[in-house]
Amino acid sequence: MSTNYDGGRASRSRGRPRLEINRDAVADAVAELFAEGGIEAVSIADTAEKLSVSRATLYRTVPTKEDLLGILFERSTRELTERADAVLADIVEPGEQLVELIKLQSEAAIQMRSYMPVFFGGGGLPPDVFMRWRRWSKQFEKRWSGVVEACMDEGRLDKTDPVVATRLILGMIIWVSRWYRPSEKITADQIADAAITLLRLKVAKP
Amino acid sequence: MSTNYDGGRASRSRGRPRLEINRDAVADAVAELFAEGGIEAVSIADTAEKLSVSRATLYRTVPTKEDLLGILFERSTRELTERADAVLADIVEPGEQLVELIKLQSEAAIQMRSYMPVFFGGGGLPPDVFMRWRRWSKQFEKRWSGVVEACMDEGRLDKTDPVVATRLILGMIIWVSRWYRPSEKITADQIADAAITLLRLKVAKP
Repeated sequence: MSTNYDGGRASRSRGRPRLEINRDAVADAVAELFAEGGIEAVSIADTAEKLSVSRATLYRTVPTKEDLLGILFERSTRELTERADAVLADIVEPGEQLVELIKLQSEAAIQMRSYMPVFFGGGGLPPDVFMRWRRWSKQFEKRWSGVVEACMDEGRLDKTDPVVATRLILGMIIWVSRWYRPSEKITADQIADAAITLLRLKVAKP
Repeated sequence: MSTNYDGGRASRSRGRPRLEINRDAVADAVAELFAEGGIEAVSIADTAEKLSVSRATLYRTVPTKEDLLGILFERSTRELTERADAVLADIVEPGEQLVELIKLQSEAAIQMRSYMPVFFGGGGLPPDVFMRWRRWSKQFEKRWSGVVEACMDEGRLDKTDPVVATRLILGMIIWVSRWYRPSEKITADQIADAAITLLRLKVAKP
């Protein structure tokens, strides 16, 4: 029997090869469990089964249900932030920025519908994930309210409290997660378009 | 020992007097439990304690947790329906109807904030309450969408799919339940006013 001194990789050679747990795959598995049965359906055992790895293998990287939720939470919030930042970087006019933010939030509401109300509402999250959600949602709301306020300054929206207005517009779209049914064949684009029409953010194309 | 043949009332005379369970008091107690710990905190034992009656007494009228939720659900939906109907009966102009519906829904979102997202979302409800919720919410949505459609016909709202528009406006207000914090000192009126401003439903008073 030889002893390996060449680092972690070789130290695994004696037993089963240690599988690298891909965090994206974990996030996908947790999202599927959410879709199947809500936050209660999320467990190490079922995630391991979805990933076709043993519980022990998953447990080495992700020891608790809180960590599972945290992985999905990180990915979802990172994606939302990155996409919102791209909109803010690419577009100058606040009215158009808000239109694009509404479009991407509407897509996300449908794509993330099984867990978005839990994440955005904060309810039912483990304390650690809840605290991260609070920090993130404040930042995210700030991005949105900057745009909403600029829309008011430029007359694209009538003036009112920009924070309340932001929460109302975001809520309008987040709540889509709750009523959306694929069988109704209403698309994210149609929903975004209805919201943009209600807010009279449409501009006649020249 | 005498035997009583004069109906239920007298048959109780040998034991403790049977307390009448007031369904309104039950609804209040269940709402308080919701506020304290969400749907998981609702139980026969804790409701009995809040009502200062024995579990056995409560159990005779309300045998299951499902019944407890059903009682709160009935009262909340009945109140919302009655108040919406009063608006529709008292006001003729669709724009003003929508303004008043938004005001009362905003008040209700704050007052019922601990359980409104559960009831409106349907998630986590026992099957029987869920089915009643589906029937009720279809009817309630129809009341709203009639007003929204009339607003579009009269040019008070820009034209778009009235059902999607209704769900967006309702969602905007229902989601208030999730972000409302008494410590922020934002009132139901201010929230309704912001929504009405965003939707440009304000009319200059003559």
